[in-house]
Amino acid sequence: MVQERNFMDKHQPGKYWIGFDLGGTKMLATVYDKDLQPLGSKRRRTRGRDNTGVESNRISQTIEKALADADIDLKNVQGIGVGCPGPIDPEKGVVYEAPNLGWQDVPLRKTLEKQFGCPAVLANDVDAGVYGEYRFGAGQSARCVLGVFPGTGIGGGCVYDGKIFRGRDKSCMEIGHVPVMPDGPLCGCGQRGCLEAVAGRLAISAATAQAAYRGAAPHLLREAGTDLADIRSGALAESIEAGDRAVEKIVRAAAAHIGTAIAGVVHLLAPDVVVLGGGLVEAMPKLFVGAVETAAREHLLPSFAVSLKVVPATLGDDSTVLGAAAWAEHVISTAC
Amino acid sequence: MVQERNFMDKHQPGKYWIGFDLGGTKMLATVYDKDLQPLGSKRRRTRGRDNTGVESNRISQTIEKALADADIDLKNVQGIGVGCPGPIDPEKGVVYEAPNLGWQDVPLRKTLEKQFGCPAVLANDVDAGVYGEYRFGAGQSARCVLGVFPGTGIGGGCVYDGKIFRGRDKSCMEIGHVPVMPDGPLCGCGQRGCLEAVAGRLAISAATAQAAYRGAAPHLLREAGTDLADIRSGALAESIEAGDRAVEKIVRAAAAHIGTAIAGVVHLLAPDVVVLGGGLVEAMPKLFVGAVETAAREHLLPSFAVSLKVVPATLGDDSTVLGAAAWAEHVISTAC
Repeated sequence: MVQERNFMDKHQPGKYWIGFDLGGTKMLATVYDKDLQPLGSKRRRTRGRDNTGVESNRISQTIEKALADADIDLKNVQGIGVGCPGPIDPEKGVVYEAPNLGWQDVPLRKTLEKQFGCPAVLANDVDAGVYGEYRFGAGQSARCVLGVFPGTGIGGGCVYDGKIFRGRDKSCMEIGHVPVMPDGPLCGCGQRGCLEAVAGRLAISAATAQAAYRGAAPHLLREAGTDLADIRSGALAESIEAGDRAVEKIVRAAAAHIGTAIAGVVHLLAPDVVVLGGGLVEAMPKLFVGAVETAAREHLLPSFAVSLKVVPATLGDDSTVLGAAAWAEHVISTAC
Repeated sequence: MVQERNFMDKHQPGKYWIGFDLGGTKMLATVYDKDLQPLGSKRRRTRGRDNTGVESNRISQTIEKALADADIDLKNVQGIGVGCPGPIDPEKGVVYEAPNLGWQDVPLRKTLEKQFGCPAVLANDVDAGVYGEYRFGAGQSARCVLGVFPGTGIGGGCVYDGKIFRGRDKSCMEIGHVPVMPDGPLCGCGQRGCLEAVAGRLAISAATAQAAYRGAAPHLLREAGTDLADIRSGALAESIEAGDRAVEKIVRAAAAHIGTAIAGVVHLLAPDVVVLGGGLVEAMPKLFVGAVETAAREHLLPSFAVSLKVVPATLGDDSTVLGAAAWAEHVISTAC
């Protein structure tokens, strides 16, 4: 609902943006000023598997609390940008599928526009993160930024000529589901040999859990055990730091697979820069970026190898929420 | 050199375009009217391995003869579009490398502009072909066309939002060099497991030559022998037609590899349509398009599979020369 105009509002009217990161485990709303500097925010746990109505209410409440934290009146907000997990229809503003939320075909844009009385813009969360890196992070002012974010899945995004690269009716750059190994391991999507089935965090955790169980990764076994839910990026980084060579070997092999797949994407898109982000990269940036770049370079044609640039993301957890707000600003300002 | 203006010229001034297809074995110049209807053309064998100067002269002569064939005065030509093999710098108009011509870093655009006194625009030959299909063929008015042209190599091209997708300083969409098989067969580029090493015409010819030698492809053995130079797309199609099941199996397996790689590219770009062209597809469109589409569909996420559209190219040999002229028209008209 649109709030009554309050002429006592201390800020300039119509100059604020809201970014929203709808993650599988947490949601984050941040209010930004016209220069996209953060003024206030609110973070909440995502319930997951709730029905759509309840989760939508929690989204609205989180946005309202961020506005209160920033001391900004809703009437001065120009638009809301939302980064959503999974594929979306950017035109219609529909979340096709967000398995962690139990969502399917949710018209989130309409819901938010009705509730807050200002335009909303949806983007895939990785696309939003890459757009954030393009505007304020490791991909600034590049003509083409390819972002690859290895985590439980492996997300990809691309900003080309200043805009998020997208399909006619859906987000794309699903590098996690590029087939990289004929008859390879089974992926969560039902296919075999997808990049994320070969080299995602779950594949790494499964391989390292076996090493731990067999006694080849004593530090990992002691600190994290053999439950995949506990073998997260931080635990892997610590185990390598502590000398678990088997874990390092597994992580390096996964990074090499990602690098090889990136070489394929570089042959297609010739990006100015490849930005690596996500949990695994944040936990061990040097090892991961180095191993990815080496493998990518090994598989590139000389004219592509010479201009290859692989860098870690610099915005960390804020990339999606900031990128979503910045993308909303771009789309809404361009449309006016 | 710019010719003297001839006011007796029977045609409207400044309304003609020249397309040029610089192939490894033939070159083709065609003169088009303002609606890109062909008026005259000239085809010549490419000498190959000649020095750059001699080949450039042959290019100029071929263009002059096409102008004579069309009865058009050079002064009425608005621009020249050239489709070149191998990677190019579209901005600077430089051919980086054309192995069949023995070329390296040839500033073809400048040479042509100096010689003919009108603007010239370079594109990679597959990009030009895909642009031709976008303007006049199988990809008309699509927001994103992905073109894949399997031949001796496997070329790719993409038209996105009405423009050829390109890197900052080079053409891209090199789908032939996407790695598809870890430790796979050696590619001409020096890498292992590139798509064209696994599924290009040379790989198919080598596998079928072995089958023929072993007696498993009697028709192919009789008609084409076991020399890879003679086992071309037409010979493969005839052998399949005549009942060489081993050849069909090899071709289908190659098409399936191409389809699997295309699934990866579809996950990245979400094209509206995938256009298949080149010698193998022209020789056996139904078998090839069918096998590619089946394999691609098998490897796609449901939301991508539902919108997949794979079609054969419709412009045949003319796609590159027409696409090059049309692209020059687009670039030069937009710049004015």
